[in-house]
Amino acid sequence: MTDYQQFFSRAAARMTGSAIRLMGGVAAQNRDIISFAPGYPAPDTFAWEEFQAMAQELLSGRDGSVLQYGPTRGHAPLVEAIAGIMARRDAATSRDRLLVTTGSQQGLDLVARVLMDPFDVVLVELPTYTGAITAFRNAQVELVGVRQGVDGIDLGELDDTWVRLHRDGRRPRVLYVVPNFQNPTGLLIGRAKRAALLEWAERRDVLLIEDDPYRDLYFEDSATEADVRPIRADDRYGRVVYLSSFSKTLAPGYRVAWIDAPPAIASKLEFAKQASDLCTGELDQRIVYEACRRGILDRQAPILRAHYREKRDVMIAALRRELDDAISWPDPRGGFFLWATLPDVIDAHAMIERAIAHGVIYVSGNAFFVDGSGQRMVRLSFSAPTPARIDEGIRRFAATVREEISARAVTPASRA
Amino acid sequence: MTDYQQFFSRAAARMTGSAIRLMGGVAAQNRDIISFAPGYPAPDTFAWEEFQAMAQELLSGRDGSVLQYGPTRGHAPLVEAIAGIMARRDAATSRDRLLVTTGSQQGLDLVARVLMDPFDVVLVELPTYTGAITAFRNAQVELVGVRQGVDGIDLGELDDTWVRLHRDGRRPRVLYVVPNFQNPTGLLIGRAKRAALLEWAERRDVLLIEDDPYRDLYFEDSATEADVRPIRADDRYGRVVYLSSFSKTLAPGYRVAWIDAPPAIASKLEFAKQASDLCTGELDQRIVYEACRRGILDRQAPILRAHYREKRDVMIAALRRELDDAISWPDPRGGFFLWATLPDVIDAHAMIERAIAHGVIYVSGNAFFVDGSGQRMVRLSFSAPTPARIDEGIRRFAATVREEISARAVTPASRA
Repeated sequence: MTDYQQFFSRAAARMTGSAIRLMGGVAAQNRDIISFAPGYPAPDTFAWEEFQAMAQELLSGRDGSVLQYGPTRGHAPLVEAIAGIMARRDAATSRDRLLVTTGSQQGLDLVARVLMDPFDVVLVELPTYTGAITAFRNAQVELVGVRQGVDGIDLGELDDTWVRLHRDGRRPRVLYVVPNFQNPTGLLIGRAKRAALLEWAERRDVLLIEDDPYRDLYFEDSATEADVRPIRADDRYGRVVYLSSFSKTLAPGYRVAWIDAPPAIASKLEFAKQASDLCTGELDQRIVYEACRRGILDRQAPILRAHYREKRDVMIAALRRELDDAISWPDPRGGFFLWATLPDVIDAHAMIERAIAHGVIYVSGNAFFVDGSGQRMVRLSFSAPTPARIDEGIRRFAATVREEISARAVTPASRA
Repeated sequence: MTDYQQFFSRAAARMTGSAIRLMGGVAAQNRDIISFAPGYPAPDTFAWEEFQAMAQELLSGRDGSVLQYGPTRGHAPLVEAIAGIMARRDAATSRDRLLVTTGSQQGLDLVARVLMDPFDVVLVELPTYTGAITAFRNAQVELVGVRQGVDGIDLGELDDTWVRLHRDGRRPRVLYVVPNFQNPTGLLIGRAKRAALLEWAERRDVLLIEDDPYRDLYFEDSATEADVRPIRADDRYGRVVYLSSFSKTLAPGYRVAWIDAPPAIASKLEFAKQASDLCTGELDQRIVYEACRRGILDRQAPILRAHYREKRDVMIAALRRELDDAISWPDPRGGFFLWATLPDVIDAHAMIERAIAHGVIYVSGNAFFVDGSGQRMVRLSFSAPTPARIDEGIRRFAATVREEISARAVTPASRA
């Protein structure tokens, strides 16, 4: 019997699965589960008819390159279209700065390979996106978290952390932030704070990784386009590596996203991508390009804003009705996520079994905290279920929470 | 001005682009270039009509999961279909051993992450596939090459190399081989040698990475299905990590391939893939699955064998006519590549400028040699150009070689 442990790399020895993907598996196995776990977009919003028509045209066989290997940087017309999107976000760019990636997860992975060495320290928000945590941890870095206020990352704590690390002889080269409707908190970094972050990055010689998948999904009752202005738009210093995606606005099944970075970094990211998967799927890129060219992306944005805003409203109404006295949350101003704090007797991770028994799942907060905290928090995604299922799901979630509170109150000793 | 060099990881500092991809760029910029450089399949062989029909059905919107995030292991019915393919290759497997990858390049990259640490030594064939070289080098390993005979890797030199390394306190944990119609040589590992390789791996406690994308493309005048039997089929020890792909048989634009590995390794590969791109494109996977289910893959195989065999014949006939006295090659018994040795005055890498001037490109041999040799060799891909273009391309190539020989003969001093 071969002993495989001895063959694993140091990175592999520590690899484990993602809590979110695990919950996805639970949901797939049981049809009656209402899932607030993964941040899936709602498939009934996808532009099915147009996708069908575009695929049919592209697969007519007139152009063999549609199913061929393509350039690592991406399908050239799509790269041009992305440059147009960046310009409309006030972040004018050029082809030598752009790279199409196989979803933003690949973007995070490439960033880790190009900018991180084992034992480096990397700064992240507390809490932060699990996909970034796993990609960066696979590069064997140490992640150090910085707390957030209602307007995003705490600048005082950020600099204190930098000074403390610096005093210990360690140099953080990278800070990762999700400025718009952060995953998992749903928070926005405030407008003044964005400018201050750039100044801080320049002063401390740090690169900002700005991950911006939810930017188009601002809810018009509480956020404007000015609120979601990318940090990258005001980057005079070349400090920002910017990631965005078509997964939340067109469909994740195409796996098409992009990175905008200073040319020297973009060139290294391209080499890293060559070795990772040669190129992103050509058919997928062509469909996404056609969706840009034909105005489908622009048409979808306001539809999606209204769609997800309504779902947020349903979730908030149900939470107020069912659990207003027991939990608290900041109202999401966009994106997919509501971030709730539970009573302090509750351990959200331990509660998951009870939730499954009630037919509902979520992601417990600790998955997003690099310091192991977050036990009282849950991330509830309102993006995929229908309004009726959201309402019923919150009913089940409330029953779970109430039962858990009772159980904890009766047998506190059992926690030890 | 930000100095980006200081931000690069050690791996990134050494990353460079691939010679093959670079040649792809040359071809894309100049329509009159005849390219023998990249190993592109011929798009006129693709099942365009069926692809179109399947995409249309899948994109009807009846099933929202077609454009959603999917499981990291792959679309479950596709995984089952791959298990069927493996069984027909006499390599029965199970779901816990299988992982769908975003092309085999991702497979190589995941293998590197899970099985290789910086400064490890990894054994490869001399020459070997450039995509493996870059993926493994990004893991910062040292690659040590073992020469090949006409029936593949030299077992004596392989064990001598192992002993020499072992004596120096180094332990190669992995040997990478392409047993069928190797990229770049087109060679097959002989049947007896495959069994001997397995015994060697067990004796020396080494894992074999068996990369098998060309297996279905054996030319029936000189190879049989028995000749392409995977090493994996006879692996009683659990020594083989097996990679194969739909890129050469259906189309590379879908980026769908797979790994079969012992379950403990497959599980780590899955975690590594989660962090790399979450999942392979769902639409792509569904189309590939339908192509399996509807028998399109089975129907294509003999068509492709005849197609590429004819192109090989055209290339060989043209080479015999134009250059028989000056160069030599083993006749390919399958796959996409002819591997030619040029007169020793020639440096194939230096000759590329002249070739471009003549309107033809190839990949020079040194790209495939981890020891820096191979200057006299060229890889000529006969897969993508039409027969008429192959004939004309070899005419141009011959003119290039003759001119280069003359130039070298006249000015030997200029080489210094």
